[in-house]
Amino acid sequence: MTDKEYMLRAISLAKKGEGWTNPNPMVGAVIVRDGRIIGEGYHKKYGELHAERNAFASLKESAKGATMYVTMEPCCHYGKTPPCTQAIIEHKIGKVVIGSKDPNPKVSGKGVQILKEAGISVVEDFLREECDKLNPIFFHYIKTKIPYVVMKYAMTLDGKIATKTGESKWVTGKEAREEVQHMRHRYMGIMVGIGTVLADDPMLNVRVKDKKNPVRIICDSKLRIKEDSQIVKTAFNQRTIVVYAYSQNIQEKLERLHSLGVETLYCPDERNQIDLKKLMIYLGNEGIDSILLEGGGTLNESAVRAGIVKEVQAFIAPKLFGGANGKTPIEGIGVNLPSEAVRLKYVDICQIGEDIKITCKLYEKEGEE
Amino acid sequence: MTDKEYMLRAISLAKKGEGWTNPNPMVGAVIVRDGRIIGEGYHKKYGELHAERNAFASLKESAKGATMYVTMEPCCHYGKTPPCTQAIIEHKIGKVVIGSKDPNPKVSGKGVQILKEAGISVVEDFLREECDKLNPIFFHYIKTKIPYVVMKYAMTLDGKIATKTGESKWVTGKEAREEVQHMRHRYMGIMVGIGTVLADDPMLNVRVKDKKNPVRIICDSKLRIKEDSQIVKTAFNQRTIVVYAYSQNIQEKLERLHSLGVETLYCPDERNQIDLKKLMIYLGNEGIDSILLEGGGTLNESAVRAGIVKEVQAFIAPKLFGGANGKTPIEGIGVNLPSEAVRLKYVDICQIGEDIKITCKLYEKEGEE
Repeated sequence: MTDKEYMLRAISLAKKGEGWTNPNPMVGAVIVRDGRIIGEGYHKKYGELHAERNAFASLKESAKGATMYVTMEPCCHYGKTPPCTQAIIEHKIGKVVIGSKDPNPKVSGKGVQILKEAGISVVEDFLREECDKLNPIFFHYIKTKIPYVVMKYAMTLDGKIATKTGESKWVTGKEAREEVQHMRHRYMGIMVGIGTVLADDPMLNVRVKDKKNPVRIICDSKLRIKEDSQIVKTAFNQRTIVVYAYSQNIQEKLERLHSLGVETLYCPDERNQIDLKKLMIYLGNEGIDSILLEGGGTLNESAVRAGIVKEVQAFIAPKLFGGANGKTPIEGIGVNLPSEAVRLKYVDICQIGEDIKITCKLYEKEGEE
Repeated sequence: MTDKEYMLRAISLAKKGEGWTNPNPMVGAVIVRDGRIIGEGYHKKYGELHAERNAFASLKESAKGATMYVTMEPCCHYGKTPPCTQAIIEHKIGKVVIGSKDPNPKVSGKGVQILKEAGISVVEDFLREECDKLNPIFFHYIKTKIPYVVMKYAMTLDGKIATKTGESKWVTGKEAREEVQHMRHRYMGIMVGIGTVLADDPMLNVRVKDKKNPVRIICDSKLRIKEDSQIVKTAFNQRTIVVYAYSQNIQEKLERLHSLGVETLYCPDERNQIDLKKLMIYLGNEGIDSILLEGGGTLNESAVRAGIVKEVQAFIAPKLFGGANGKTPIEGIGVNLPSEAVRLKYVDICQIGEDIKITCKLYEKEGEE
């Protein structure tokens, strides 16, 4: 195997941690001596061992003089676990090949420096682009403490997320809907508007085995959520935050919601709408590094306008609904001129079952991140 | 070179006839002896020589005993030109490798039979799928005498063809707009609604060199077209058919339009809307084998509902317009339930400049074609 193949192996190990490591990054590591993998591991879950230490734990022989391929610069600080640089030095690794730099200011470059000072040969930026792709959430959150928001919607090829009567079951096929279940595991939060909750009474949980449920964030400016909704009824089992922006005659309802396990957050802007930017700061402080926005057209438009959306994942079904009154993914106010459009950058296009999935990033405005 | 490479060469020659051969198919031919191409040609233009005869015309030596690779079964009937089977026999070709079958009932299978009876070895269905892809229009039109209608639109990733104010200049980038110019050359007709004509005063011509202009078909049920519109002013240079469905007090306007070179067609259904199915029969009889439908949401919906659309080419721009009042590609009535959606089949997805182009076919209903 080549250097590249060892690093690709480390990348594929890293991916096994998807959804479990947040707000930590996904990281994989492979230890090689004499053209043979003698140890490997990945960061399995937040609070547990880092990839490097899991790789050492898998060893059945000494790693003295071996090469370690690791998708991200080893940490050199005491966090939930002791620094990995220390373990690498103790195991007398001869060479470390690193993919991503650690953007964490506590670590960046220092891990490499410590290794070099210990006489270990270090190769940096190896397959860095591929390694960086593992952790857009981590890179964003570590720098901003704001969740990485992915706006996801499913529409027909004529741009409808629901028919004129509001029916949306189903736009996409089975495989795409299954992929959405995995997305709900991958991101720490899921956010919808009260319109969706009242119309569909959804659970917003993950219905595939061995996955974790996201924190539910309901944008409900007038606190219209029903106490017998699926979401409220299951709030003791899945963290649920109802965000509102209207403060009159709601004290009793708030108390009842709290007694049912629902958290509430008063987060108004000056027009008594929900202040989405402030909400993101709050959720970031709560340790939520990423949010899947499964809004309707109104919430989606507010989120785009507030500048909180970082990525769009659009599923496009090979169907036409038609209808001047069909629902579209982004409604609300919208722009007057094409030149005022929000600009995207295509990142990936793939087919999932019968549908197409398009992934885009939003261009950052000047001065942001 | 392999058999496959010779046939691929014939396919790429065939494509040079794009837009010029209609309503004939695009066909290419390569003549090979001793591993060397000794002649090649393609059908350049309707009414001129077929591919096989152009290949013979290019010969600088005898083709006796050579192999001919031809993307479609050679014709055996007298049309605008004498049968190609005769030329193949006269040139003493030893073997003919054929891609597509000729769906023309006057020819299908007979060309092969005549060659075989003349002692020529024949290979059929060679790279047939690739060869068939050259001529969806021809295969449709030869069987139905109805134009092959391609609905083309350009929308943002949130499904808008225009902003809430109706502005659509521009949704897509330069490269995609250039591709549309080529599409206008490829199809014999271009069809829009009067709304587009009144809003944009377009030319609906081809603005790239050495391409031909399509016949303009304007769906204008109440005959609202302006006599000083670009389209009417250029009607002597580019065939223009204005279709209407309303017959009161229009005699004078009709006469003025005729004097300006505009053809008119009264084609109402029972509700005094334009009968698109009847219109297609008329246009098919006029020898128009294909139409690029560049409608707005209303005409597009009527066309889909009437069942005349065979293919969708959707350009998707990496932009978001938003807006509950933004314009979408298919409006009108639309379906009530997702299960009633018009079903498509993805054929091709590619990137053109900054945009994505998705090509789909519509599933034929039972009993059709």
